[in-house]
Amino acid sequence: MRSVRSANPALETLEPYDPKYLPANAFLSANENPLDVPADVRLAVKREVRNVAFNRYPDPLANDLRDLIAEANGLDRDCVLAGNGGDELLFDIALAWGGPGRTFLNLPPTFSVYEINAQLTSTNVVRIPRRADYSIDEEAVLARVEAGDIDYIIVTSPNNPTGQLADEAFLLRLLDATDALVVVDEAYFEFSRRTMRPWLEKHANLAILRTFSKAFSLAGVRMGYLFADPRVIREVAKVRQPYSVDAVSQIVARVVFENRAKFEPGIKAIIAERGRLMNELGAMDGVRPYPSDANYILFRVSGADAVWERLYEQGVLVRDFSHAPLLEGCLRVSVGTREQNDAFLAALRAARKE
Amino acid sequence: MRSVRSANPALETLEPYDPKYLPANAFLSANENPLDVPADVRLAVKREVRNVAFNRYPDPLANDLRDLIAEANGLDRDCVLAGNGGDELLFDIALAWGGPGRTFLNLPPTFSVYEINAQLTSTNVVRIPRRADYSIDEEAVLARVEAGDIDYIIVTSPNNPTGQLADEAFLLRLLDATDALVVVDEAYFEFSRRTMRPWLEKHANLAILRTFSKAFSLAGVRMGYLFADPRVIREVAKVRQPYSVDAVSQIVARVVFENRAKFEPGIKAIIAERGRLMNELGAMDGVRPYPSDANYILFRVSGADAVWERLYEQGVLVRDFSHAPLLEGCLRVSVGTREQNDAFLAALRAARKE
Repeated sequence: MRSVRSANPALETLEPYDPKYLPANAFLSANENPLDVPADVRLAVKREVRNVAFNRYPDPLANDLRDLIAEANGLDRDCVLAGNGGDELLFDIALAWGGPGRTFLNLPPTFSVYEINAQLTSTNVVRIPRRADYSIDEEAVLARVEAGDIDYIIVTSPNNPTGQLADEAFLLRLLDATDALVVVDEAYFEFSRRTMRPWLEKHANLAILRTFSKAFSLAGVRMGYLFADPRVIREVAKVRQPYSVDAVSQIVARVVFENRAKFEPGIKAIIAERGRLMNELGAMDGVRPYPSDANYILFRVSGADAVWERLYEQGVLVRDFSHAPLLEGCLRVSVGTREQNDAFLAALRAARKE
Repeated sequence: MRSVRSANPALETLEPYDPKYLPANAFLSANENPLDVPADVRLAVKREVRNVAFNRYPDPLANDLRDLIAEANGLDRDCVLAGNGGDELLFDIALAWGGPGRTFLNLPPTFSVYEINAQLTSTNVVRIPRRADYSIDEEAVLARVEAGDIDYIIVTSPNNPTGQLADEAFLLRLLDATDALVVVDEAYFEFSRRTMRPWLEKHANLAILRTFSKAFSLAGVRMGYLFADPRVIREVAKVRQPYSVDAVSQIVARVVFENRAKFEPGIKAIIAERGRLMNELGAMDGVRPYPSDANYILFRVSGADAVWERLYEQGVLVRDFSHAPLLEGCLRVSVGTREQNDAFLAALRAARKE
């Protein structure tokens, strides 16, 4: 028997994204919406899915959904692209704007998938770490793009896992300082209520990424979308898998988007709970929460890995970043329902007393 | 306003896959199953989907489905990987076994996505064209791999769009002649009833790709799977998008696979209709059909592009390869229902008479 030759050696050091999902009573680790799609919306989904031909290939570009999102945002269809989750679009951007000999500028600590995608596409990575308070080192970024070798940049706003928005004035300066593609990842836009959308027509190098996975309770269904200049959309569409967004997901997302007003009470509750969690965490000795505009809060706590264990023993799953670079000693809790947040706070207080 | 710098210039010549899907009465262009999932299976799907949490991320590896497929094929879970259609797995293979400085051996004319994936991943392509009758130039392939520079090979069996199986003895010689990853794309396995599965344990460099898109009527739902040595599966899993297979598709595919016996009558009908179409086409003057082990027939006809137009005017959509390299003058018709095939034959006869 012949052996099989190794996979691409450039990928030997690749550490695939690990969501570290474990069984728990309170899932507060993945920034999901704690509430599922409202029952009446789910019923509408069921009615529409009944008519889908499972045996036919889906519309490659999900044009019905695309039109709906475009119209709601005052855009033309060719400024919008749907993807199999924001994840697929992030990968496609790396494929189209990265590649061998090209360079991605990253602002760590941030969503780890960006660098995985760069490695997968043989893209160089330049890093400008955030400051100790996780704010962007704006002048360093603006100075660095002057070199002219940066092909794309991703600015996460609010940043994951640290929680803060990027400053709009800074983003505008950045867009003027470079012709690199500047992707503003607004995955948590519905919780921050701030967007770069108004600047889209004025900046050909601005792309905005959004998702249905968080505010719209569709993490399981996989749907993300991108806003950008039609020339950018065309290039990203060129590299994407032609049938990546399946027919059922297209319908689920369409019905959810049509009914997006029904998610508002849930979003408002999360924002209110975020404020309460922030106050409670801030009042705890030895716990330092970072301000958040998203549906999660990063906090530093001494003995973070042991605290994570104690929380997990109490059925509360949060995300452990305590050994991640630049995030040492930090845990991230997603804002859940009031009951889940109470369970988290009680478990954290108990853990801190030990 | 700053312009945006171009995407990766290596992709400038990329021509994305174009399914050329158009509105029609008889869709005979995409090798779909003409029948949708049977009503009782669909009902079972509906019952199970009711319990899915849309708001939670899916199981990244679709382990329930994986176990089911593994067990039915006498394999362990770690020999099976599910993907967002066979398409995603083909791309992941190019990413893992291709890449800059690595080489893919292709046997054109075949499924065009293989070369698109090579281009997307900066993989070199070596081509050994098929003979005039579309059989594989076996000795040329065996001689070529001796050079030792080939990293992966895809042998489509039955080949798309030409229809014939690869010879098993040849595949075994190839597996012994190289340590390249040899992917046998069995997308149409259920219509050929021939598989390399029995050889999997004996060849660490053999991978087998299958799909739910054809025989199992799930083109719209997107599900494919790969069989290979656990070391190969691990490498492919490493590069794939972590949540590419959504929660609903996992359930639909599981229920369909559990009920796969119910698709047998439909598959048998397609095989019978394939024989009938083959006879009818063979009896037509100036039409040369190629023998097929799949659910489509490639045929050469003079004035093929005009014939395609005439068929389309009659509501019959077939796939036009008449200007594709090595397929000049050829059209491909998917085997449909008896009625659809009759409509196709009538339209073809009418077109030939003009």
